[in-house]
Amino acid sequence: MLNVGLLGAGRIGAVHANAIQSHPDSTLIAVSDVVSDNAQKLATQYHCDMRNTDDIINDPAINAVLIATSTDTHADLIEAATAAGKAVFCEKPVDLSLSRARACLDATADKAARIMLGFNRRFDPSFAALQRAVKAGEIGKPELLSITSFDPAPPPVAYVKVSGGLFRDMMIHDFDMANFVMGDLPESITAVGSSLVDPAIGEAGDVDTAVATLRYADGRIAVIQNSRRASYGYDQRLEVLGSQGQLQVKNVAENTLVKSTTDGIQSANPLHFFLERYMPAYHAEWTAFVTSVSNGTDAPVNLNDGVNALILAEAATQSVQSGLPSSVASI
Amino acid sequence: MLNVGLLGAGRIGAVHANAIQSHPDSTLIAVSDVVSDNAQKLATQYHCDMRNTDDIINDPAINAVLIATSTDTHADLIEAATAAGKAVFCEKPVDLSLSRARACLDATADKAARIMLGFNRRFDPSFAALQRAVKAGEIGKPELLSITSFDPAPPPVAYVKVSGGLFRDMMIHDFDMANFVMGDLPESITAVGSSLVDPAIGEAGDVDTAVATLRYADGRIAVIQNSRRASYGYDQRLEVLGSQGQLQVKNVAENTLVKSTTDGIQSANPLHFFLERYMPAYHAEWTAFVTSVSNGTDAPVNLNDGVNALILAEAATQSVQSGLPSSVASI
Amino acid sequence: MLNVGLLGAGRIGAVHANAIQSHPDSTLIAVSDVVSDNAQKLATQYHCDMRNTDDIINDPAINAVLIATSTDTHADLIEAATAAGKAVFCEKPVDLSLSRARACLDATADKAARIMLGFNRRFDPSFAALQRAVKAGEIGKPELLSITSFDPAPPPVAYVKVSGGLFRDMMIHDFDMANFVMGDLPESITAVGSSLVDPAIGEAGDVDTAVATLRYADGRIAVIQNSRRASYGYDQRLEVLGSQGQLQVKNVAENTLVKSTTDGIQSANPLHFFLERYMPAYHAEWTAFVTSVSNGTDAPVNLNDGVNALILAEAATQSVQSGLPSSVASI
Amino acid sequence: MLNVGLLGAGRIGAVHANAIQSHPDSTLIAVSDVVSDNAQKLATQYHCDMRNTDDIINDPAINAVLIATSTDTHADLIEAATAAGKAVFCEKPVDLSLSRARACLDATADKAARIMLGFNRRFDPSFAALQRAVKAGEIGKPELLSITSFDPAPPPVAYVKVSGGLFRDMMIHDFDMANFVMGDLPESITAVGSSLVDPAIGEAGDVDTAVATLRYADGRIAVIQNSRRASYGYDQRLEVLGSQGQLQVKNVAENTLVKSTTDGIQSANPLHFFLERYMPAYHAEWTAFVTSVSNGTDAPVNLNDGVNALILAEAATQSVQSGLPSSVASI
Repeated sequence: MLNVGLLGAGRIGAVHANAIQSHPDSTLIAVSDVVSDNAQKLATQYHCDMRNTDDIINDPAINAVLIATSTDTHADLIEAATAAGKAVFCEKPVDLSLSRARACLDATADKAARIMLGFNRRFDPSFAALQRAVKAGEIGKPELLSITSFDPAPPPVAYVKVSGGLFRDMMIHDFDMANFVMGDLPESITAVGSSLVDPAIGEAGDVDTAVATLRYADGRIAVIQNSRRASYGYDQRLEVLGSQGQLQVKNVAENTLVKSTTDGIQSANPLHFFLERYMPAYHAEWTAFVTSVSNGTDAPVNLNDGVNALILAEAATQSVQSGLPSSVASI
Repeated sequence: MLNVGLLGAGRIGAVHANAIQSHPDSTLIAVSDVVSDNAQKLATQYHCDMRNTDDIINDPAINAVLIATSTDTHADLIEAATAAGKAVFCEKPVDLSLSRARACLDATADKAARIMLGFNRRFDPSFAALQRAVKAGEIGKPELLSITSFDPAPPPVAYVKVSGGLFRDMMIHDFDMANFVMGDLPESITAVGSSLVDPAIGEAGDVDTAVATLRYADGRIAVIQNSRRASYGYDQRLEVLGSQGQLQVKNVAENTLVKSTTDGIQSANPLHFFLERYMPAYHAEWTAFVTSVSNGTDAPVNLNDGVNALILAEAATQSVQSGLPSSVASI
Repeated sequence: MLNVGLLGAGRIGAVHANAIQSHPDSTLIAVSDVVSDNAQKLATQYHCDMRNTDDIINDPAINAVLIATSTDTHADLIEAATAAGKAVFCEKPVDLSLSRARACLDATADKAARIMLGFNRRFDPSFAALQRAVKAGEIGKPELLSITSFDPAPPPVAYVKVSGGLFRDMMIHDFDMANFVMGDLPESITAVGSSLVDPAIGEAGDVDTAVATLRYADGRIAVIQNSRRASYGYDQRLEVLGSQGQLQVKNVAENTLVKSTTDGIQSANPLHFFLERYMPAYHAEWTAFVTSVSNGTDAPVNLNDGVNALILAEAATQSVQSGLPSSVASI
Repeated sequence: MLNVGLLGAGRIGAVHANAIQSHPDSTLIAVSDVVSDNAQKLATQYHCDMRNTDDIINDPAINAVLIATSTDTHADLIEAATAAGKAVFCEKPVDLSLSRARACLDATADKAARIMLGFNRRFDPSFAALQRAVKAGEIGKPELLSITSFDPAPPPVAYVKVSGGLFRDMMIHDFDMANFVMGDLPESITAVGSSLVDPAIGEAGDVDTAVATLRYADGRIAVIQNSRRASYGYDQRLEVLGSQGQLQVKNVAENTLVKSTTDGIQSANPLHFFLERYMPAYHAEWTAFVTSVSNGTDAPVNLNDGVNALILAEAATQSVQSGLPSSVASI
């Protein structure tokens, strides 16, 4: 049984608490949060302790720490928990700053195998099955990747201002997915972006609609489309054309009801946003973590993957500003 | 907070334990099982007590009892827990015997509102949305209902022999669904059945492939198709034609990956069996129970619904034996 | 080059004229119709002669005759054209009367191979592919067939009165499809029917909503659902469960446009009615006829198939009247 | 009745001949071809004359000329037939050379309304319905367009060498589609391309896999993906995200048969190539031409549309060579 301490009891912390308790081989021992009411609520529901973060990190009875606190604390907590000998699962990103993320990667290099980063989409049943099929050669060599990733509605401008911009905040998931599927970093990125959804986003210096084209050293190509607004819901699709076929991941609908009338054939919208769409992925990534800790195998997604995604976000941000292709090697 | 005692810690009991613990307004206090290892496993995972059934039923700190024991104990436990003042959630069926089910209904008549029967398919997001749409008149008057319900593989013959037969064991879910959607009992049922899947099922006096046609007093018609074997997985569909349109519930796939090659366009099989297909329904029915107990409103599915489904199963069984239509009123 | 005379220049005759002219190995020589304007219109469009029926049947330069006149003339024209040595393609049905159809079958028995009956659905690309797959054993043994066949709107009651009733006029296509897919006649049929769509249809002694259950000697089962009204369009589906899988034919949509908004995901209605839905089938059946005449092989659908479908229609009509199963052998 | 002369009796000429003869208001009077056997074959099938091109252009009894000859003769024949007073329908493109196309546009400027260019995809039922929906504001303002257009297999390298390159030969259809849907030319294009499918294509100086990103003056974005090889068939999809929703055109399948086995759920490949996929569009574009000539209204697609598509092809070709964005205004 893996004894787990949870740092952070907000919305995403509650999701992780349920994943921990639903897994037959892990159990939640203690939870902390800067807002003690949040921590107390989870402690009551799951019959466990509320403590402060230091106590959790230093408790020898706790084997693993799950970090679900605010982004700016991630790197510090990863370093502290790793130093205390814990296996660590940390919500993405490592940090908004590429240099801080690189420093954290360096500082924990000797424990890299026991630190997992929560790029949850890799564990979505459909995306995971796609990557396995690519890797198994089911469509020959993957040549042209296309990712469509639209949020249902833009976040508040106040959030946008501290988010690091669309490429670091939103497209970063798609950059990781490109790295996951193509198995390599691209050579160059060209990005175009506009503020079409909310003028205030443009005034804040960011874009809300963007397309990035990634070119790989061997000529392969990937395209990523992002928009902050798809009125019909969270649009999360991916397709990859290979020399012997194509693989696509389609959206997941709220239900399978179909209504046919004189007005047409109507089916349900996609699951509204990331908590609904990726709930199975949150459970699956936790299962993967428990398995890797139990078996002493490498964490399936690590800090290096986090740094790689940040590199692409940085390159795309530069390209949209310069109007020219960005070389990835120069980042 | 609803304090819950769980009776029965087998496969389905474990599903319910997770639903209880995942709900923010209910918590698992104690669990019992004739196999104490099963009970101990759930008690450890969810940080609660293992006790015997009587202690749970008589504990004044426990508000509600969830019955997930073997079918032959359901009616007795419903009566005992109701007598002890508990709100009761019981797995279907009430009993294989229509007369015992009717007796249980009578014995608990004054507490009917606080006894919920676990016809979980009514809480499947798709079936529930379909029934709401029918009720809201979105397709006018429902005129022709068609239910397709195939299991992935037949159960062992030993199970078939004590199951009460296909109509009481398998089609009973579809009879309840017909009652749910059409809002009324039919006047007559004609059923045909064959043993095509496994000759041993025929030798045991049962059928494994069957079609029942239900005729309602106002001329409406329903058709139910059952097979014990769909090699591609659990096939659970329903469609209803109304005067102004049609509603369909389609299968739920394992994932949304699509592979296109020279061999065709291939997508994932339906979720394999009932635990996978109806997992969201198990959580939703529990939520409905917690809400009805909290608000003091009527249980959304009750023992009377259980008796009605048994009546149709009885009529269909008689029809397949006689080769003639069965009158429902005569059951 | 097959020189063809067309008898009947109404709506369906015009469809056949185009099929004849679109085929590189057949050409339209002459057309006749009781309404000479109809015949003249096709003659002008396709640069051919307008003549009377006898001239066409007796012209030695004409190799084949396509009969697209009113139903009551089919049997006589089949006999006359066959006697004149023509290859014959005749629109379904042979006749509304089973005895007249049987007489025509007998009268032309020695030329059976050169008389094709236009059960066009057998040549629909999807239904044809399904039957080939069944025959090739792709799903093992077919065990449970389900046909859904709904018209978009009921015909005028005046038509209903002379149509022979729903089973002879509408479900007859589905009976032929059952014969085509199952490769055998059933042993018995049980049918239920109601007048739910238009009370005037009930007053005329017919039903507009019906379900027929066919039981085969080896225990296999088929179910056919008909309604005269599907507000969303022509609903033409079929599925068959076999010991090793399932085959389904889905509807054909007007187009592949999908609109996603906050109201849901909307796609196009099925092609509205039989001319749109089965246009490729009209061309394919003509190609099959040209091929069989050219090669001297048996017509792929013959008068015997027409008689067999009428037998099932007769049995179903009797069952809905008696409320009991009908034996097919007794018809 | 529109009397039509057909210039060119090859594969695409035969398609047009059938469209002309299938339309009740047009008829084929004469056909010419440099290969007289081709012309004779169509003349025999459709009961019309074989003549030489000049005779057809100068016959006062012929109202309209359909040009389906080789690309290098298009501009000359457009000018000659227009000068002879004919309404003209010409297969795309006007010419591979932008300057020749512009010269033809200028030379026929006073008859522009009677010259239709065969950008047939605009008349595909799905693409046409999409464009109407965009224009009607059904998804608000269109902001992000994505076109996927893959051929089933690359053409011979000999063809590639004289084709003008992927952007002029293949993506030109998609550029026209972008112009059609977005209603405007973009400001700039960035294209990346590789030779991944066939090294010989790269050696010939062309690409076989390419992505072009179009940026409009108001910030809107379009992305076009092309590959010369999709092993599963002709992949022709388009989607456009608007401020109030999304519209998608999906592929058209060969049939609607679905097979479900333990291996998954398998459906038919897309229609194999352009003749199958766009056959309804060939008929619909001809109907649009007949209607515009009959009513004296402007041709719905004209030489100017042809020039605009060539401009984008030119810009994309330059971008892929320079590695930089191309300004459309500079072409």
